[in-house]
Amino acid sequence: MAIVFYDLAGRDGRNFSPYCWRTRMALAHKGLDYEHRGTAFTAIAAVAGTDATTVPIIEDDGRAIGDSSSIADYLETQYPDRPSLFGGETGRALCKFVHSWTNTVVHAGVARLVVNDIYDHVCKEDRDYFRASREKIFGRTLAAVQAGREDRLAGFRADLNPLRLTVRAQAFLGGERASYADYIVFGAFQWARSISDFRILADDDPVFAWFLRCGELFDGLGRKAPGYY
Amino acid sequence: MAIVFYDLAGRDGRNFSPYCWRTRMALAHKGLDYEHRGTAFTAIAAVAGTDATTVPIIEDDGRAIGDSSSIADYLETQYPDRPSLFGGETGRALCKFVHSWTNTVVHAGVARLVVNDIYDHVCKEDRDYFRASREKIFGRTLAAVQAGREDRLAGFRADLNPLRLTVRAQAFLGGERASYADYIVFGAFQWARSISDFRILADDDPVFAWFLRCGELFDGLGRKAPGYY
Repeated sequence: MAIVFYDLAGRDGRNFSPYCWRTRMALAHKGLDYEHRGTAFTAIAAVAGTDATTVPIIEDDGRAIGDSSSIADYLETQYPDRPSLFGGETGRALCKFVHSWTNTVVHAGVARLVVNDIYDHVCKEDRDYFRASREKIFGRTLAAVQAGREDRLAGFRADLNPLRLTVRAQAFLGGERASYADYIVFGAFQWARSISDFRILADDDPVFAWFLRCGELFDGLGRKAPGYY
Repeated sequence: MAIVFYDLAGRDGRNFSPYCWRTRMALAHKGLDYEHRGTAFTAIAAVAGTDATTVPIIEDDGRAIGDSSSIADYLETQYPDRPSLFGGETGRALCKFVHSWTNTVVHAGVARLVVNDIYDHVCKEDRDYFRASREKIFGRTLAAVQAGREDRLAGFRADLNPLRLTVRAQAFLGGERASYADYIVFGAFQWARSISDFRILADDDPVFAWFLRCGELFDGLGRKAPGYY
């Protein structure tokens, strides 16, 4: 029985969750078939027979696994003969640093640039939940969080220097080939691309070139998904 | 013939260069004997028969190799039967991201907190060179760069969150065991410890606990070196 992958579903078939993109790329990297099921934020608790509050969730062989990091660990362990996501234990450990950098620097930065655009792309039934939960986190309206983003763009882009210097010197964070570390960071930019026409990366930025390279992987999995550029 | 390791020498036998600490830890990790030779900034061009302008430099088997990253690559290739610095090609590739993060975030931050203290610890013959070259980079006096550091400390510490989250969850960046990625970042904090009593990390910071763990490696190599804490 094929794996079932529960992905966040926005309106118009847009799957924008950065964490779900990590899992989607990991499944493709492992070459695993899966049934793709979209769910609204407010319907997550009903999927997979779990009391989960977030996706991604996968069901495999009668088990339900949530949390993108746990899913990556599970896939690496369960399918050791498929291409490795981590390239060994040191690579797996260093992924945790990339994960922490992405969550604290990139996700925080992207959210402040496009959070009101996300609101415009969630399912109709998720709109009240999304606005209330995110405005509670930020302590301001979504429009206020996003306001003035043009002035904050240079600072966001400067914060990407560690990534920029790396992918200017090598094709992927993982080296010549993409690894799970790449998918962690890719998810953040795919999130933005899925729900906003605001260009958070300049066309001539090595980070943008790397993003496009990631989008071409697995027969253009990322590029073919609905997005603004 | 043992490897010769040219290290930067400050006054009172303080070897504070963050890049040289990367090499020193890498040599220890590989379990390689070496002859340790200190050099002043202004004497680098005369060492190892090269026209190098920076240390570390190692001489091994009739070759001189400079640049800490090149040295790490050389040691990994030349001594494959010794403990691995990178844990494979993905680990080596991800080290480049840690390197870029350290250089752009940590080194830049540390320098602005302690650069005038560095001046106080360089060799007498290096003082004019150090002041002139660094003041040219910063466009201000060293005292002016360092001034107000108490007010900037919280920002510096916040920038360490990606490291903090990682070493709170695992012993080292490399996982259960230290890897070259750890030595890259360790060098930055050992640099500060070597030349300044200004505590850039709080005692209860998981980053400080990790720094102390690194200092205990190889029979306390880092801890035993002259420093303020």
